[in-house]
Amino acid sequence: MLILGIDPGYAIVGWGVVSYQNNRFKPVGFGAITTPAEMPFDDRLEVIYDEMQEILRRYPVEGMAVETLFFTNNQKTAMAVSQARGVILLAGKKMGVPIHQYTPLQVKQAVVGYGRAEKKQVMEMTRLLLGLDRVPKPDDTADALALAICHCHTAGSSLYRILKK
Amino acid sequence: MLILGIDPGYAIVGWGVVSYQNNRFKPVGFGAITTPAEMPFDDRLEVIYDEMQEILRRYPVEGMAVETLFFTNNQKTAMAVSQARGVILLAGKKMGVPIHQYTPLQVKQAVVGYGRAEKKQVMEMTRLLLGLDRVPKPDDTADALALAICHCHTAGSSLYRILKK
Repeated sequence: MLILGIDPGYAIVGWGVVSYQNNRFKPVGFGAITTPAEMPFDDRLEVIYDEMQEILRRYPVEGMAVETLFFTNNQKTAMAVSQARGVILLAGKKMGVPIHQYTPLQVKQAVVGYGRAEKKQVMEMTRLLLGLDRVPKPDDTADALALAICHCHTAGSSLYRILKK
Repeated sequence: MLILGIDPGYAIVGWGVVSYQNNRFKPVGFGAITTPAEMPFDDRLEVIYDEMQEILRRYPVEGMAVETLFFTNNQKTAMAVSQARGVILLAGKKMGVPIHQYTPLQVKQAVVGYGRAEKKQVMEMTRLLLGLDRVPKPDDTADALALAICHCHTAGSSLYRILKK
């Protein structure tokens, strides 16, 4: 199973491709799409869309795991992230990749084993599961890898397989 | 001058194409893109994107006027609208159409002449300016036409022309 995890944003979009076979995770590729603050917003959306399609062309993933939108006091940021998330979902859709959504709570439960885990624990567990020497930077990339692991874990569970039948 | 006005949404996207010549407005085409509530959200985004591109192919507009995002207590709705708005902006960008953004206040000022005008007055003025027998339905379509008028008015003003030089 080859899965792309995405941590949505407009300045930084974290991404990570993880393979999952015989209960083992392997990092296949990861990084971040970044757009400069001085770029007009519609240009930033285009950069994100184009780079998303490029990643999806490069890796023949069978699914995409995207973080759900979180509620925040900074509505301006939330709305900008949401617009970027819209073009991220569209890129997956246009490439025919099924899209799955997970909350931060679900990611913590899948990666660390309990929902109140701290960010640091999630990152350290992600590093261990992927056999990496250090936690990938920026944090958005590590978050994206955790999302991919979360989906592999969920989709790989026997319960999920039964439900999908 | 041929301008496309857009009132963003995910269930209904209002659109209206207005021509502006010799200080006269003419409605060229208008309608609404609608997506059913039971459709998966990423499918709805794709429908909006595809229909936006179709409209932009049909009408050789020289600009697109899109309503700015408004702040609301319903953050869930705001984030869904924002995701749709992201793919709307991307559609314009991909078709090479310059995107202009206006607040409801700017639209009221441009169409009715004062910023505290009521929605009904804006709609009635839009109808009059376009020489229509009745206000187009749904409201989103009427709002989109008002946005197009707002941009024609702003872009047609001598001050705007001087600033653009």
